[in-house]
Amino acid sequence: MGLGTVGGGVFDVLQRNQEEIKRRAGRGIELSMVSRRNLAAARAKVGDAAVVVADARAIIANPDIDIVIELIGGYGIAKALVMEAIAAGKHVVTANKALLAVHGTEIFAAAREKGVVVAFEAAVAGGIPIIKALREGLTANRIEWIAGIVNGTTNFILSEMRDKGLDFDAVLKQAQALGYAETDPTFDIEGTDAAHKTTLMSAIAFGIPVQFERAYVEGITRLQAADITYAEQLGYRIKLLGITKRRLNEAGAVVGIELRVHPTLIPMKRLIANVEGAMNAVMVHGDAVGTTLYYGKGAGSEPTASAVIADLVDITRLQTALPNQRVPHLAFQPDELAATPIMPMAQVVSSYYLRLQVADQTGVLARITAILAGHDISIDALLQRESAEGESQTDVIILTHDTVEGKMNQAIAQMQALPTVLAPIVRLRKEELS
Amino acid sequence: MGLGTVGGGVFDVLQRNQEEIKRRAGRGIELSMVSRRNLAAARAKVGDAAVVVADARAIIANPDIDIVIELIGGYGIAKALVMEAIAAGKHVVTANKALLAVHGTEIFAAAREKGVVVAFEAAVAGGIPIIKALREGLTANRIEWIAGIVNGTTNFILSEMRDKGLDFDAVLKQAQALGYAETDPTFDIEGTDAAHKTTLMSAIAFGIPVQFERAYVEGITRLQAADITYAEQLGYRIKLLGITKRRLNEAGAVVGIELRVHPTLIPMKRLIANVEGAMNAVMVHGDAVGTTLYYGKGAGSEPTASAVIADLVDITRLQTALPNQRVPHLAFQPDELAATPIMPMAQVVSSYYLRLQVADQTGVLARITAILAGHDISIDALLQRESAEGESQTDVIILTHDTVEGKMNQAIAQMQALPTVLAPIVRLRKEELS
Repeated sequence: MGLGTVGGGVFDVLQRNQEEIKRRAGRGIELSMVSRRNLAAARAKVGDAAVVVADARAIIANPDIDIVIELIGGYGIAKALVMEAIAAGKHVVTANKALLAVHGTEIFAAAREKGVVVAFEAAVAGGIPIIKALREGLTANRIEWIAGIVNGTTNFILSEMRDKGLDFDAVLKQAQALGYAETDPTFDIEGTDAAHKTTLMSAIAFGIPVQFERAYVEGITRLQAADITYAEQLGYRIKLLGITKRRLNEAGAVVGIELRVHPTLIPMKRLIANVEGAMNAVMVHGDAVGTTLYYGKGAGSEPTASAVIADLVDITRLQTALPNQRVPHLAFQPDELAATPIMPMAQVVSSYYLRLQVADQTGVLARITAILAGHDISIDALLQRESAEGESQTDVIILTHDTVEGKMNQAIAQMQALPTVLAPIVRLRKEELS
Repeated sequence: MGLGTVGGGVFDVLQRNQEEIKRRAGRGIELSMVSRRNLAAARAKVGDAAVVVADARAIIANPDIDIVIELIGGYGIAKALVMEAIAAGKHVVTANKALLAVHGTEIFAAAREKGVVVAFEAAVAGGIPIIKALREGLTANRIEWIAGIVNGTTNFILSEMRDKGLDFDAVLKQAQALGYAETDPTFDIEGTDAAHKTTLMSAIAFGIPVQFERAYVEGITRLQAADITYAEQLGYRIKLLGITKRRLNEAGAVVGIELRVHPTLIPMKRLIANVEGAMNAVMVHGDAVGTTLYYGKGAGSEPTASAVIADLVDITRLQTALPNQRVPHLAFQPDELAATPIMPMAQVVSSYYLRLQVADQTGVLARITAILAGHDISIDALLQRESAEGESQTDVIILTHDTVEGKMNQAIAQMQALPTVLAPIVRLRKEELS
């Protein structure tokens, strides 16, 4: 259902590698029907290899079809079709992160009821088998945290901003001209797409229902070239990270889950800091395995098709297993999902990068550091730029140790009120990922 | 069977995370018996949690046991026990790469015959779920090549040689003192361990039987600090890579498989060039997915236990599936394995790094470059060190483009015979991994 970029890729890869796939799976996989509104375009693509229909419901109505692939996207018709396919007893493979991050609870419950699988490896980080790694490969672990670059458009923009010293707007135009960003790039640059993917990883890692509405989402549109440069001087690179963490109290009990997407300073020497251009990478920290990382193309026709087809083969295999022995949709048995709350952002613990544009006067630093100390926020590094000749203002950059975001907000409000702080304070979060 | 470092880790992780694992798997996993020659040490470790026996055969003889974990290692008793466990109808989980790389064909055939699984995620790259990624996650792809850092000891030694500018022998002693290298480090430093793992990945990637005896194996013992320094100057880092590639003829037909382990120059900007210390990383290039990379701890008690337990959970799940629907041991259906030959090293295609110690005389370079040209070997970069004051000799470093190793061997023999070439020519292979 949907024969666009990814659908075309699925068709191409199944055609090209059908022998190789059959040698592995022990059976062929036949794409028997495809739907696309533009029938002529669909016929031009698949020729006689599959029946072409304009109405996706004709696929769901076909009793000979075992598995339906949803590649339409969005919450509208895609949701209706997925629910109808499940109701018709079909297994579903989808790349639709938005749909699952928002309506996953309803969809997975319906699938369980009918004893069918909804597979979604393609929904997170394209061709990287990260869902399989989290649900199966790391099943022995308590996952402690995940941090991922899961949106290629924003990573491309950040790489270019750093390489060329340009501001966000200039690079976005260039990315759009090159096809790395869509005409309406809102979902990418505002962090929504990354938050959909992080929401899915969070649910799978921690055994909680998908709760996109509780994710904190901050994009890269307000990021300035100056902060990228200062971060580099301090040994950090700025990436848009999707972060989810299990937070423990002092007794070691789980008190909440952090779920957040925002530009983040990461030490340059970390592998993930060196993931450039449109590539994706996800770090997963488990208590037994330690830190692992998964890297590859997070989007595009054939990388996404690679994940869709892996799901197809998995379904053909698991079909003969008892339904309750299959890998659960969210990694944990449905009756074992936890009610652990997603923490409000004010309770999140992070370290911070602050940039303050201050009057070049005696005592300015003393007042700023006193405010931080007053909120129990300790300073990790401080950089004061020499003021340019003839200027009476300068930049002060502060890196802090870990603190609760609520305290940091209070400290920032107090510093902002100082007459010697001349512009809105820039605040970015920092993660050591060690 | 075997309660040493890894066995102890399996016990610890199963104890610590049993609730978490049960929430995922839908059932508990109980370690009911453990064997170790030193009964007192075994009892001190497991207490009352499991029956302790000195003879592993008591485990195989127990009709209540479904899955046997072999963590003894080596080809001797471990092979006998694995074959006996299979004969007794037990599934087997093992971390024993040496055993499978050498005797895999026999072992997998016996398992198939009895309808049991031999699972070995822990045999390659420790806690990184690379076997799962290759066998399942990338199943849609024609794998084109794999290149991996799959031995932590040698990667630690190479990282230290570069950081401290030391020669191999000095760093080995230090690594032994720190416990990063064993008292008899031969299997690690001569590349054997990496070749075992690469052999397994090669079989899974290309659908061929395991053929360790055909692998080309060259360790790091002869590597000199000078070559690490020159490589850095040219923008490369030296890593011990396990490489396996599908080689095509001009018509696109597969003519052979390359399977080799040797020190390799890699461009510094590749992520894998920045994998430091005892960490592992594997790059996999598939035709649909492009390049992916998997990174993590390749050894150690709990990382390896993480992989062992993932296999345990997989087996509990697949037990209810029809045996012929399970993931095949070598990714491809057993009757679909190909007879594609492993190519002799002389037919392998690579680019090269050469270091020639030459007399500082007119015409030396002309003779060397003429020999290379005479073998159709084209030069990518050349670096001639200025000879130190009072010295009449200098180093010439040459990077070549791709050529067949046989031709390179002939060219080296001819250059070596020149009276102006004063020492054995250093030859290293180079991979762009793009």
